[in-house]
Amino acid sequence: MNEQRRFKVAVVGATGAVGETMLAILAERNFPVSELVALASERSAGGEVEFKNRKIIVQDLATFDPAGVDIALFSAGGSVSKEYAPKFAAAGAVVIDNSSTFRYDDDVPLVVSEVNPREAKNRPRGIIANPNCSTMQLMPVLKPIHDGYGIERINIATYQSVSGAGRSGMEELGKQTAELLNFQQIEPKKFPQQIAFNLIPHIDDFQPNGYTKEEMKLVWETQKILGDKNILVNPTAVRVPVFYGHSEAVNIETRKKISAEEARALLQKAPGVKVVDERKAGGYPTPVTHASGTDPVYVGRIREDFSHPRGLNLWVVADNIRKGAALNAVQLAELVAAE
Amino acid sequence: MNEQRRFKVAVVGATGAVGETMLAILAERNFPVSELVALASERSAGGEVEFKNRKIIVQDLATFDPAGVDIALFSAGGSVSKEYAPKFAAAGAVVIDNSSTFRYDDDVPLVVSEVNPREAKNRPRGIIANPNCSTMQLMPVLKPIHDGYGIERINIATYQSVSGAGRSGMEELGKQTAELLNFQQIEPKKFPQQIAFNLIPHIDDFQPNGYTKEEMKLVWETQKILGDKNILVNPTAVRVPVFYGHSEAVNIETRKKISAEEARALLQKAPGVKVVDERKAGGYPTPVTHASGTDPVYVGRIREDFSHPRGLNLWVVADNIRKGAALNAVQLAELVAAE
Repeated sequence: MNEQRRFKVAVVGATGAVGETMLAILAERNFPVSELVALASERSAGGEVEFKNRKIIVQDLATFDPAGVDIALFSAGGSVSKEYAPKFAAAGAVVIDNSSTFRYDDDVPLVVSEVNPREAKNRPRGIIANPNCSTMQLMPVLKPIHDGYGIERINIATYQSVSGAGRSGMEELGKQTAELLNFQQIEPKKFPQQIAFNLIPHIDDFQPNGYTKEEMKLVWETQKILGDKNILVNPTAVRVPVFYGHSEAVNIETRKKISAEEARALLQKAPGVKVVDERKAGGYPTPVTHASGTDPVYVGRIREDFSHPRGLNLWVVADNIRKGAALNAVQLAELVAAE
Repeated sequence: MNEQRRFKVAVVGATGAVGETMLAILAERNFPVSELVALASERSAGGEVEFKNRKIIVQDLATFDPAGVDIALFSAGGSVSKEYAPKFAAAGAVVIDNSSTFRYDDDVPLVVSEVNPREAKNRPRGIIANPNCSTMQLMPVLKPIHDGYGIERINIATYQSVSGAGRSGMEELGKQTAELLNFQQIEPKKFPQQIAFNLIPHIDDFQPNGYTKEEMKLVWETQKILGDKNILVNPTAVRVPVFYGHSEAVNIETRKKISAEEARALLQKAPGVKVVDERKAGGYPTPVTHASGTDPVYVGRIREDFSHPRGLNLWVVADNIRKGAALNAVQLAELVAAE
């Protein structure tokens, strides 16, 4: 990195759960910011966000002139990205986009910082896509296994926290929980069913094949990030009443047999991954005890799958707002800054 | 059933979550009871339980004489079953035991009422074992598929409610949730980690192979109930902050290909099973909206697994205290009464 250079950084969607964490992580990691611009919809404009203990006035995205912005981190939903990301890119900014809008376009790289960082450089449209949270946390774990043993098939059941649905998702879990404990009636708004003390096997829209779009993201994004269209992925995505941290019960089948011991040794060296795997109480990661508010992807319950000659089971947990979204976006900005 | 005959029924563990529900279900289904005896440990003896709107005094199991009891429903933990079930059987009672103590003994049948009812008759020790909740709900769903298409392998991730750990499990979720909403410190007691707003991938003891005993129950019991040692089962069992109702993300591989449509048609006719499977908001079962307090096993999210030529996905939800324990025990008593 050019030690001298500092960057004008725009955060679009700065008042959201991910946007706010982007600001916190830019500060934490001392990203070389010359100027920080916080942008949001007209409704949120005029409010304040915090960056390095200073208040920053939120500006209206619709009337903001992107000229001079070096790096723009977008996390304001698909329609905002679709309209504004190309404008920022045309004005010369590198856009790092957290929505699914551009993820499956061939001329937009989809990058997990520890997994396929070099692809971030090849961005003909000036846009780098940030993967979906549930795929994101899986990639640093699967990458070294795929490189060494060849992953053929992945069976995955997710346990996804409400913060994946943004601040309103967290508010709904908190509100419903309090209402139920006070013997009040609840009314689902953000989620299609009651989420407090319940589970919902339905995230994002249903597709004609019976999978949800959230499930298909795991298929499409895993193949794109690992650069292998032959990897088969069978996902079930479920929302659970947890505030922060996505968990995944993962079963993989490899071309070459990998033992639990070999997997553990490999993952202990994997960048961004922390192995928590003792066969005793607490010897495994959970959203609250490990993931929430921290950076690594945690993996435990590593064991050979005795139902398949080359099967392996993993339990993968990470903070979906940090590594699953904001942290990786800032890490991508660091890659751009280091060019 | 001989319409005249009525039975002296003992419920052992009558003050527990399952025992209490056994009493309710015996009443609901009008089981032909001549006398109802409620038994528990010395600690609970002298208290009252309700049966058909009448109070029944709980007696001390240790000093109770089992002579004359026709049917004894045990749900008081493994050590109680181990000591007292043989005594009740020796005194002439048919014991229906909800613990895991006898489940894997060759001379004790393990029976799900809709699946292998005829095996209940063959009980040389006078004991019929009631399967574990997570296996129980899976069996009525898998049985017709296995019969018609041959199940070779099952990959399953569970989402198990706290009532599976008994009343103290429910109390711990309620207490921790209220404490956290009031910004108090919590202290895990019943569960190995915080359960409120969290997940715990650890139920029952770890085994040398890295699976937990709860996971191994799914392997052993599925093979025994379906009568096929060749069925391969790969489970991950996870406790979730839900009060009632276990959910399971199930992937099966069959010998003969089964389409989603064929599976749906087959399951619509399966006894004890209810298909809830529309590809829209709410078109799938959840613990709160369907399972809690009801009898059927619900199945939804039925879709072909595009990662395997003969793969199928299912989402299975049931009330773990009812079909998963008390209801099936009473259904087994009905089989005995009908002999």
